[in-house]
Amino acid sequence: MSQLTNAAIITIGDELLIGQVIDTNSAWIAQQLNMHGFHVQRRVAVGDVWNEIWRALDEESVGADIVLITGGLGPTADDITKPLLSEYFGGKLVLDQATLDHVTYLFEKVFRRPGPMLERNRKQAEVPDVCTVLKNEVGTAPGMLFEKNGKLFFSMPGVPHEMKWLMEHQVIPIIQQRFFPGAIEHRTILTQGIGESFLAERIKDFEEALPAHVKLAYLPGYGMVRLRLTARGNDPVSLKNEIDHLHRELQLLVADVMVVNEDFTMEQVVGRLLKQQGKTVCTAESCTGGYIAHLLTVHPGSSAFFSGSVVSYSNSIKQQVLGVSETTLQTAGAVSEATVLQMATHARELMHTDYAVAVSGIMGPDGGTADKPVGTVWMAVSTPLKTEAKLIQLRFDRRRNIELTAIQALNMLRMAILQNT
Amino acid sequence: MSQLTNAAIITIGDELLIGQVIDTNSAWIAQQLNMHGFHVQRRVAVGDVWNEIWRALDEESVGADIVLITGGLGPTADDITKPLLSEYFGGKLVLDQATLDHVTYLFEKVFRRPGPMLERNRKQAEVPDVCTVLKNEVGTAPGMLFEKNGKLFFSMPGVPHEMKWLMEHQVIPIIQQRFFPGAIEHRTILTQGIGESFLAERIKDFEEALPAHVKLAYLPGYGMVRLRLTARGNDPVSLKNEIDHLHRELQLLVADVMVVNEDFTMEQVVGRLLKQQGKTVCTAESCTGGYIAHLLTVHPGSSAFFSGSVVSYSNSIKQQVLGVSETTLQTAGAVSEATVLQMATHARELMHTDYAVAVSGIMGPDGGTADKPVGTVWMAVSTPLKTEAKLIQLRFDRRRNIELTAIQALNMLRMAILQNT
Repeated sequence: MSQLTNAAIITIGDELLIGQVIDTNSAWIAQQLNMHGFHVQRRVAVGDVWNEIWRALDEESVGADIVLITGGLGPTADDITKPLLSEYFGGKLVLDQATLDHVTYLFEKVFRRPGPMLERNRKQAEVPDVCTVLKNEVGTAPGMLFEKNGKLFFSMPGVPHEMKWLMEHQVIPIIQQRFFPGAIEHRTILTQGIGESFLAERIKDFEEALPAHVKLAYLPGYGMVRLRLTARGNDPVSLKNEIDHLHRELQLLVADVMVVNEDFTMEQVVGRLLKQQGKTVCTAESCTGGYIAHLLTVHPGSSAFFSGSVVSYSNSIKQQVLGVSETTLQTAGAVSEATVLQMATHARELMHTDYAVAVSGIMGPDGGTADKPVGTVWMAVSTPLKTEAKLIQLRFDRRRNIELTAIQALNMLRMAILQNT
Repeated sequence: MSQLTNAAIITIGDELLIGQVIDTNSAWIAQQLNMHGFHVQRRVAVGDVWNEIWRALDEESVGADIVLITGGLGPTADDITKPLLSEYFGGKLVLDQATLDHVTYLFEKVFRRPGPMLERNRKQAEVPDVCTVLKNEVGTAPGMLFEKNGKLFFSMPGVPHEMKWLMEHQVIPIIQQRFFPGAIEHRTILTQGIGESFLAERIKDFEEALPAHVKLAYLPGYGMVRLRLTARGNDPVSLKNEIDHLHRELQLLVADVMVVNEDFTMEQVVGRLLKQQGKTVCTAESCTGGYIAHLLTVHPGSSAFFSGSVVSYSNSIKQQVLGVSETTLQTAGAVSEATVLQMATHARELMHTDYAVAVSGIMGPDGGTADKPVGTVWMAVSTPLKTEAKLIQLRFDRRRNIELTAIQALNMLRMAILQNT
């Protein structure tokens, strides 16, 4: 087994510790490092507090070869990271002319700010004299590289698109050149319709027979379970063959509940199926309020298969735009089989698509009745051949009910497309 | 100044270290602890690795009085947390009859699983004999409380809704009773239309004059900057008076760029304005694909002011459902002032609302031209008095362009509502 190159991630900012901001940076950094064969050992978040940042640098450099630091480099006074790094690595702050030229250029030509540049923005061009400056082409705060006891420390701003640019253009190329990473391979299978423990029971023998350098993880989420095989080794070619073999074996074991054998989301799977078949879809959404349409359009290339949506939150829009009959709304109600069948059929006609998905339900916390408690959802899919509805019952909070409804409706669409092939 | 009660959060799971899952649990836990007057000192994420979890327990208990642990308690084999905690605190695993009864009840009555319960689910009822079992009414894995050197360690499952239930019903009541927390107060102001450094320049004197026990933080995001004042002290009443006074002072300094003086999101502010006025809104979305509708409907109570949306991703829906003229689409194009003006006006008529918001743009990565590069967005707001359009130019990736467009459109709506009052 290869010698692992270990990385640790430190994110700095009080906002992370009071929970006002969710730390998406370190998830993204971890993803990139793994893709490039580096192993993330720990992630730690600390406040804008001198002693805490210092302690994190001490502790994280113990087991790691690479320490990636984000945050604390902005132009405002709660940022203390730069002077701290300077002292920690035994340097002093000096003006970096190339950075100053770049900051000036950004202010004058790109941001086109009126008036003179502020002193606090000039200060962004100050860097410790013991670091290698990593030019940040998309922002004013430069990246910095420090070395100590053969370990590399990278400091990047916390603004996500600046951090991402620095990772891709500066950090990854440097660490790839510097360390010869051991090979690492991931294979994923997305399953739906089976609980984590039943899945584990089914693939128990497979899991127990796995060699020591291959790990299996269960990642539950949105009513689905993602299985991930991870293998580490020295020889990339044999490792790839080995994990592909195991991946095929696992696919056979879960064939009936498998959504896809790649690291894709449900909406990506649906989008790809539609694109492959040259078909289109639209949605008619009540309780999901446009969330299914959002999922389908957040990935590039969705205009090839997604035509549009009618979000019929009020009954009058169900009636007047989607043509649900007044009688149906009065007798069966907005959350009913008859309503979603009409929503799906009429949406498909109105928007001239091959498929249509419709949902109507009660997401909570209010609006439930004895007959139709919070979490009652009717959904329908209309295809060129037929329109079918189904009822699900959820029992979570509003946001999670919306997310689960969207995933279930997309899965119903996926099954209909597969049957229609 | 009060003696702070410090907390640390440990999240466990390989999935956090390869970035396949974003850690929303620890943000939520941090929020709750802060709200109840506890100070989160550090957050750390480690893999399902014996030595790493052990090390985290050692390190995090150094500065903290309370250590909250999530993850690693599921029924599958990659979970090693429970045996580890048992050994760490010097106990052994024993069957807890009350937990077994609860697990059996859930399987038989709630999940209604066919067949006998699995051995791995029975195992969830095993707990270290040195812990206090915290009943988890919404799941099979119980919470656990350990004590060592006067410090409390809580272990909770990583499934978000189970963790949240345990925090609210078990952890918070216990730590409130056990520690007398110092008082802590937060006040927030959301600003839009001014950059972080210009904002900092403007409120420099205010910031420098703040007493030592009050901190000011800048939290930028989605083209807005959130300012947060945090004060700590012993006497809740005088602390509240003091921070309210500072909050009012700060509001006067940023009055022209302030969206709201509470910890609200843009869509919550818009929703509240509409509710206060008894008015309704609809959206006509092209490039945002339903995201504005989703933002407006993700919070409870939105049916009071949100009627619906037409997501006109294809030109034929712009024409046939929203009545944008064919000539306009052919001459000015789908991304144009004329198109969004028609989209907004006709959506307002079609869905019978007081206000309508329309957007059409190019979110990337493809679809840009020399005239209309990626990031070109036209948006319009229609009110009972007039319909106005504006052009913005964004320069980020697809997802961020969608988010920023939604926020800017909602802000344009907010201004129109305020003018119309």
